[in-house]
Amino acid sequence: MTKHQLFNNIVKKQSFLCIGLDTDIKKIPVHLLKEEDPIFSFNKTVIDVTQQYCVAYKPNTAFYEATGISGLISLKKTVKYIRKNYPEQFIIADAKRGDIGNTSKMYARSVFDHADTDYDAITINPYMGEDSIRPFLVYPNKWVILLVLTSNKGSHDFQLATCSTGEYLFEKVLQKSQTWATDEQMMYVIGATQVKMLTNIRKTIPNHFLLVPGIGTQGGNLKNVAKYGINSHCGLLVNSSRQIIYADFSKKFAEAASQEAQKIQSEMAKYLARYIHLE
Amino acid sequence: MTKHQLFNNIVKKQSFLCIGLDTDIKKIPVHLLKEEDPIFSFNKTVIDVTQQYCVAYKPNTAFYEATGISGLISLKKTVKYIRKNYPEQFIIADAKRGDIGNTSKMYARSVFDHADTDYDAITINPYMGEDSIRPFLVYPNKWVILLVLTSNKGSHDFQLATCSTGEYLFEKVLQKSQTWATDEQMMYVIGATQVKMLTNIRKTIPNHFLLVPGIGTQGGNLKNVAKYGINSHCGLLVNSSRQIIYADFSKKFAEAASQEAQKIQSEMAKYLARYIHLE
Repeated sequence: MTKHQLFNNIVKKQSFLCIGLDTDIKKIPVHLLKEEDPIFSFNKTVIDVTQQYCVAYKPNTAFYEATGISGLISLKKTVKYIRKNYPEQFIIADAKRGDIGNTSKMYARSVFDHADTDYDAITINPYMGEDSIRPFLVYPNKWVILLVLTSNKGSHDFQLATCSTGEYLFEKVLQKSQTWATDEQMMYVIGATQVKMLTNIRKTIPNHFLLVPGIGTQGGNLKNVAKYGINSHCGLLVNSSRQIIYADFSKKFAEAASQEAQKIQSEMAKYLARYIHLE
Repeated sequence: MTKHQLFNNIVKKQSFLCIGLDTDIKKIPVHLLKEEDPIFSFNKTVIDVTQQYCVAYKPNTAFYEATGISGLISLKKTVKYIRKNYPEQFIIADAKRGDIGNTSKMYARSVFDHADTDYDAITINPYMGEDSIRPFLVYPNKWVILLVLTSNKGSHDFQLATCSTGEYLFEKVLQKSQTWATDEQMMYVIGATQVKMLTNIRKTIPNHFLLVPGIGTQGGNLKNVAKYGINSHCGLLVNSSRQIIYADFSKKFAEAASQEAQKIQSEMAKYLARYIHLE
């Protein structure tokens, strides 16, 4: 998907919501455990009732790897289901991969060069530097979403360490990585809990899309993320996972998830009207 | 496995060799492609002919993910095969994972809490900080192997950035992470191409095991790694992948792999005698 297509979808749906499919077999409604593939059944239902309110889905691979091969089959079915039924959705493999060039090539193959797992984007950890990212950039219209400043407490350990040249490490990652790819191929993860940094971040990267996790359960605030993060092409994909998919644990989980997604979408529509002036 | 048990295996086998099972379906001998599970057949043969010369195996998950579900089944069979037939081998999931605490817990479950994938250790990327690592440390006798200073060119991008406090970023990672776990639970990845740094690294962490990739194809030198890296409990697992498993591409690949592993083991025996004085 191109940046232009993504922006068009955002305008059409009046939403920049990304739904995190962090599906934990221990948390889904018990009545689903009777199904042949409970994880896929849960995902399919959540997708069907939320797709009109979002522009992206982001399964986090950890949740599927946790149940071994069967979990990975559920993941594969989920990605195929979205691709087939809602082809306008932007699908992100939240995998936080990264290895030496020779090995990153294999990870790139696994997400971008496989009929079963046709993702639009993958999240990548920058610690190993340029050659760990390059192999993901050779696929046309596929995206690398680089971890820059994450939403968790541990972001203070290294990402917010100050370099001898005066900037934070995460700023060095931002600056350096801009020489590797344009805003048509790279996005950045900025946690919603780091909203204080957004104004400065936008000075460095005015045009890039940001993937913003951490609203809801993690404490980030959508209003401020929109205020300081939106650019002329929206430039935001704000993720919500638990708040939507675990809005309810009973048989009414689908309605609850749908309502929660709609609530966020309505709020997003307000911010789009407020901060973007479409001709 | 405890540190003591690992050291005993090293002494018994006179080897601190770890063999990287970076098995690429495009590189294995063509006659194996007729087998039902070519990747597993290849691994099984390599393991059978090299196990006497090494103390650890390190499958890199990227190579298995690259072929989708079938690759992950081959990986699972490989780990089970090693565990069953050579229980003294230390098995490392070279997965370079790391996510927010809630998600890292899922990754930890996938490698340490699963009958099919009973690894001893996993490689972890430190960029997201302490809470991304903690969930892996709750499993007794299981290890976190933290990426510190990798063997690739990209290590210069951020790992070798200087902090305002004067040290390199990788040194900050070393220092900080020592407060999270002891040398009975944590090891560090130091690339063999970074041997110049080893003396200083040993001043900071005299007792930890280091996992050292990058000898052979990547240009690192075993002699210098041993000279500057060995401590009183050996403290090294030196990895070789391509040099061993792809020593030959014909029907003679097994003999070639075995000879290559033996050659490295003999050299290691010399260094163990030279640098460790056993009572």
